[in-house]
Amino acid sequence: MSEIKRIGVMTGGGDCPGLNAVIRAVVKTAILKYGLEVVGIKHGYRGLYLGEDEFVPLTLHDVSGIISKGGTMLYSSNKDNLFDYSYIDEHGQEQRGDVSDVGVNNLKKAGIDALIVIGGDGTLTSGRDFARKGVKVIGVPKTIDNDLASTDTTFGFDTAVATATESIDKLRTTAESHSRTIVVEVMGRYAGFIAIASAIAGGADAALIPEIPYDINKVADAIKENRARGKNFAIVVVAEGAKPIGGDVVISKVIDNSPDPIRLGGVGEVIAGQLEHLAGLECRATILGHTQRGGSPTSNDRILSTRYGSYAVKLLMEGKFGNMVVLDGTKLGYDSLENVIGKNKAVEESGYWIKTARAIDMCLGD
Amino acid sequence: MSEIKRIGVMTGGGDCPGLNAVIRAVVKTAILKYGLEVVGIKHGYRGLYLGEDEFVPLTLHDVSGIISKGGTMLYSSNKDNLFDYSYIDEHGQEQRGDVSDVGVNNLKKAGIDALIVIGGDGTLTSGRDFARKGVKVIGVPKTIDNDLASTDTTFGFDTAVATATESIDKLRTTAESHSRTIVVEVMGRYAGFIAIASAIAGGADAALIPEIPYDINKVADAIKENRARGKNFAIVVVAEGAKPIGGDVVISKVIDNSPDPIRLGGVGEVIAGQLEHLAGLECRATILGHTQRGGSPTSNDRILSTRYGSYAVKLLMEGKFGNMVVLDGTKLGYDSLENVIGKNKAVEESGYWIKTARAIDMCLGD
Amino acid sequence: MSEIKRIGVMTGGGDCPGLNAVIRAVVKTAILKYGLEVVGIKHGYRGLYLGEDEFVPLTLHDVSGIISKGGTMLYSSNKDNLFDYSYIDEHGQEQRGDVSDVGVNNLKKAGIDALIVIGGDGTLTSGRDFARKGVKVIGVPKTIDNDLASTDTTFGFDTAVATATESIDKLRTTAESHSRTIVVEVMGRYAGFIAIASAIAGGADAALIPEIPYDINKVADAIKENRARGKNFAIVVVAEGAKPIGGDVVISKVIDNSPDPIRLGGVGEVIAGQLEHLAGLECRATILGHTQRGGSPTSNDRILSTRYGSYAVKLLMEGKFGNMVVLDGTKLGYDSLENVIGKNKAVEESGYWIKTARAIDMCLGD
Amino acid sequence: MSEIKRIGVMTGGGDCPGLNAVIRAVVKTAILKYGLEVVGIKHGYRGLYLGEDEFVPLTLHDVSGIISKGGTMLYSSNKDNLFDYSYIDEHGQEQRGDVSDVGVNNLKKAGIDALIVIGGDGTLTSGRDFARKGVKVIGVPKTIDNDLASTDTTFGFDTAVATATESIDKLRTTAESHSRTIVVEVMGRYAGFIAIASAIAGGADAALIPEIPYDINKVADAIKENRARGKNFAIVVVAEGAKPIGGDVVISKVIDNSPDPIRLGGVGEVIAGQLEHLAGLECRATILGHTQRGGSPTSNDRILSTRYGSYAVKLLMEGKFGNMVVLDGTKLGYDSLENVIGKNKAVEESGYWIKTARAIDMCLGD
Repeated sequence: MSEIKRIGVMTGGGDCPGLNAVIRAVVKTAILKYGLEVVGIKHGYRGLYLGEDEFVPLTLHDVSGIISKGGTMLYSSNKDNLFDYSYIDEHGQEQRGDVSDVGVNNLKKAGIDALIVIGGDGTLTSGRDFARKGVKVIGVPKTIDNDLASTDTTFGFDTAVATATESIDKLRTTAESHSRTIVVEVMGRYAGFIAIASAIAGGADAALIPEIPYDINKVADAIKENRARGKNFAIVVVAEGAKPIGGDVVISKVIDNSPDPIRLGGVGEVIAGQLEHLAGLECRATILGHTQRGGSPTSNDRILSTRYGSYAVKLLMEGKFGNMVVLDGTKLGYDSLENVIGKNKAVEESGYWIKTARAIDMCLGD
Repeated sequence: MSEIKRIGVMTGGGDCPGLNAVIRAVVKTAILKYGLEVVGIKHGYRGLYLGEDEFVPLTLHDVSGIISKGGTMLYSSNKDNLFDYSYIDEHGQEQRGDVSDVGVNNLKKAGIDALIVIGGDGTLTSGRDFARKGVKVIGVPKTIDNDLASTDTTFGFDTAVATATESIDKLRTTAESHSRTIVVEVMGRYAGFIAIASAIAGGADAALIPEIPYDINKVADAIKENRARGKNFAIVVVAEGAKPIGGDVVISKVIDNSPDPIRLGGVGEVIAGQLEHLAGLECRATILGHTQRGGSPTSNDRILSTRYGSYAVKLLMEGKFGNMVVLDGTKLGYDSLENVIGKNKAVEESGYWIKTARAIDMCLGD
Repeated sequence: MSEIKRIGVMTGGGDCPGLNAVIRAVVKTAILKYGLEVVGIKHGYRGLYLGEDEFVPLTLHDVSGIISKGGTMLYSSNKDNLFDYSYIDEHGQEQRGDVSDVGVNNLKKAGIDALIVIGGDGTLTSGRDFARKGVKVIGVPKTIDNDLASTDTTFGFDTAVATATESIDKLRTTAESHSRTIVVEVMGRYAGFIAIASAIAGGADAALIPEIPYDINKVADAIKENRARGKNFAIVVVAEGAKPIGGDVVISKVIDNSPDPIRLGGVGEVIAGQLEHLAGLECRATILGHTQRGGSPTSNDRILSTRYGSYAVKLLMEGKFGNMVVLDGTKLGYDSLENVIGKNKAVEESGYWIKTARAIDMCLGD
Repeated sequence: MSEIKRIGVMTGGGDCPGLNAVIRAVVKTAILKYGLEVVGIKHGYRGLYLGEDEFVPLTLHDVSGIISKGGTMLYSSNKDNLFDYSYIDEHGQEQRGDVSDVGVNNLKKAGIDALIVIGGDGTLTSGRDFARKGVKVIGVPKTIDNDLASTDTTFGFDTAVATATESIDKLRTTAESHSRTIVVEVMGRYAGFIAIASAIAGGADAALIPEIPYDINKVADAIKENRARGKNFAIVVVAEGAKPIGGDVVISKVIDNSPDPIRLGGVGEVIAGQLEHLAGLECRATILGHTQRGGSPTSNDRILSTRYGSYAVKLLMEGKFGNMVVLDGTKLGYDSLENVIGKNKAVEESGYWIKTARAIDMCLGD
């Protein structure tokens, strides 16, 4: 049905546990099941632009043992969009413009018939745009935040939640022994999946997520209520994108001896400062940061990544170009890249995350 | 809608990570959401038979912090079936018979209006039988083997797979450094879910499961093929219930200085012995054993357990007696205990486990 | 030799993995080896001041299973010094003064013949002061920072280093995949043991510690040199107390909507901002924070804690009052509290930490 | 002082966490501190015999990131002794004899001036024998069992104990929930260090080690005593080399469908069978096996490995040939290979392991 003989694979955007497992599954399925050749394109779209030197043949040997490794063996780059790209022209001048034809050409030169693009919304948008130009593209969704529409779960999310939960477990014994409130800031700028999942798994008292503006007094009240019941400590999980009712958290920050101002602290620290005053327990904040993006993927994420990678090759061979692999319950399927781009998924009031949190009376700040 | 004021909760059968998380969710939801009282019944049905001394009120304080703990705070017992029970009568004679009325009476005496039973097929069968006698029962399925019909996933399975995968990761570096085949025997007497899942997650060369009788020569051939491609070691994951084509593994064993013969070794060791001869690599077996049943549940299992526990209380309050909580994709629902008992789930050829394994050319022994 | 029949035990100061293991060893050795009774004093010296309600008998059952738990089952309090204590007098007035006699009296009332005090410099200073008043005291040193003089290693340090190293492992794959410098801020206000140990274990490029003022340009040079050798990422471990040559890190910070200014960010973030400019790689900071103080102690720390706890009881029974347990190489011994108080240990140029770091050419900022 | 320009490094014997960390430290110190070249010799002495194809130059790049990896990047081989070697001669005949000259020649041909040999007693014995032939050898001790004389601790031991302890933690919750005795068989054929250390760290009731022949009735009595005190479960840690008083464990085993009889079960299973009868609790055995030899080394082992590797190079450069690196307390030093070979270290009655175990009343079977 297909005349595909050699496929390319690349990873784009921020780090996410499971990327290597997807690459490995692509390589194993392509070679062992379909007799294809696989070319890895390093550094995402930047590599596609640079061509040749960034193109490496991928063998079974190359992917042996990488299923358990964090990061991506193909490296990644952020915000490289060949349809609006900054580059140095032949006269040494910096230019900005559409260089996507260079990418298309490089694929042709390398004899690559089709492309598997693993990435988040930005990476997949470019994938769609290359599909529009006739490149045979299959997308694989990637986000630790789990906020991509059209798919129930993305790989990397389980690992991020596991890492956050493990940290909460560690902080909990300290909170209890020292009668403290500990505020844990986790990732999630636009969606609160990591926050609410790790709050449930970590047995937290409250989870503050971008989807539900919080009233800091409600959070303090929940802590005080629990104290009245004899629980002399509290764990509050906060998504980095959590916002108070009626407005943003305002943080002014200046570092005198730094050339440029950089981000200092975050919403977690602000909330910790407020709760210490309002809830009457000593309060500390911990910001988990990039540890959530790294590390060996959980077995669960390795399996999902393997399924995604294998299925992407299958879709290619079935000629389902321009689609993205999606998970619906336990079943894999696909949806058009045209359809899924730009649609974010949020934690919904009617969904099971919030239902579960409310069923065990977890404070959500409202 | 309901006149339920006080509910009982118990755990039965083998150990399974997440039991405490279910108990906690039952207690939190019952108390905080519905204003109920909760009574824990210790040691499963044995405690139901013994009554009073085995009944303990469960408060929020009692369940604080147990979400992360393995085991069950209510203890468990195996094979205690009050409908066919061995007991000592008032004359000191050992008797065997139906003592379920004693259990029903003990519930009445303790003012327990309904019962949440957390257990596997055996425990749930008794749950159904008590439901037939008019006890208001809700079942929560429990098996690390994931082989209960009617539900997509059971809590404990993810943790068992994680533990097995972590062990495979450790064994892999040894296999590679010493050019060995390592056979890892995991749990699964009747179903191969743990084996095939951990084989995929651990990047194993072969997975032998009860559902597919294996030809040892095929396994050896797969290892030799991989060697021909330059991979000088192998990992073979074997479910304890795996069987060769045409018959059982025959193991005779005698321990001279033990009063009774006990089980020595298992199918993993037999296979290791055979593969050393057939595949030409030094071969070692490791039997993971009960470590798979213990330990802190994964975040994933804690969330599923919490959902199961909360939902069980909700079902009780909605009068859905005689049912078991089930998971369908990402959604909770319920199914009649009458319907689910005695039906085991197996790894199916058309299901995603085997499809995934075959897509990456993993040897399944056939 | 001794008329000690009942002993007290307490924990003071910040959290530290292994506290429960020490308490357990004290209880087991006291009861099983010497036939003593043990009383736990909750909340450190505050509990000693409050008396009775804070005194709990400790049995073997109470300490069963706590060896693997973080935190302290006796709770702790910070900065409670009964020799200079804020309290409310009988007229409801806040007072400050020496209330140590109250503590001594409470011990007498409870029939406690001797006291084991587990804590850091502050807690042990009070221990010495009570010893001067005639209380039979044995000290057990506690600090994750490993900066107490007279003892080679303190429990909790190994766990803190393990936690930091595990985080570095996770951050490393991200750094590598995204060609970044990642700055990891670990604990250590006055001593750089955690920083240099986790930098060595994590394979970091640089470790900046309080003992060696750093030249940020030297750090940037080291990163650039490694890049020249083909390593396109870097890990820089920074102790929270690290200081640049010639002065302090100056951070001005204002949070507009917080009642009081609180600490935002730290030296790690400042260094990240500087390195991004100087070393030419995208740079991120992660501050590990209190996760380093919590969690299940490593096997190593559990063993050391058990040894400390048992030995403390032995010292008591041998009448070696006023001393602290110390570790010299692999051997336990003791040193006078009078002698060890106020003496901090630093990472020394001639010690093995710095020698090891220099032998593998790790940048120390000088 | 030295004319060493190029050094070789090899690993021999069984797997041990930390081998890669030693290799990395050798390479970093040799290149960065002394300007040497390093050649890796693959597959231990077998590689030394085969020459050229097994010799690989090692660069900084090659060892980047391996500090956290189990296994050995240089591979290993067991029982290859060039002084008594089986080989195929030029006539295709199998011969056995002293081929050590071939090894010496291969070193010369490759321009290798000195050799760092990382291994256990067998590997180091050959190292000594090569030293006697004039090869400039430095030994680095390797054994997870910690039973090499002359050095306080060997790398790999801490990781093995950590793995065993983690397994005991998992088994403990099952033992407690199901009122069982669980017997855990750990490595240690001749020495009980892993067993006693993991028993202390895991809070076990008994540790049975090769150094102290056990009376099974004493073990049963200890379990029964603990039950009388209210502890309704038990953990018994058994070294694989543990022996009953008065003789060996006798296990007869036949596998009917295996070409050769292989080892089935072990002392742990025998003891479990006996304890079930004698101590009145259901009893299960788990044999941890090779998981103890693999996996990412603990931070502690990585540091020790790094110190060992760096120091080995330093000794070479100082001309201290024929010696082995040793650890004395916290200090590195060296001892003559002539001196250390064939001397095993055992767990001693007067040492701190047994003292600690006895202080907390752990049963040692005597």
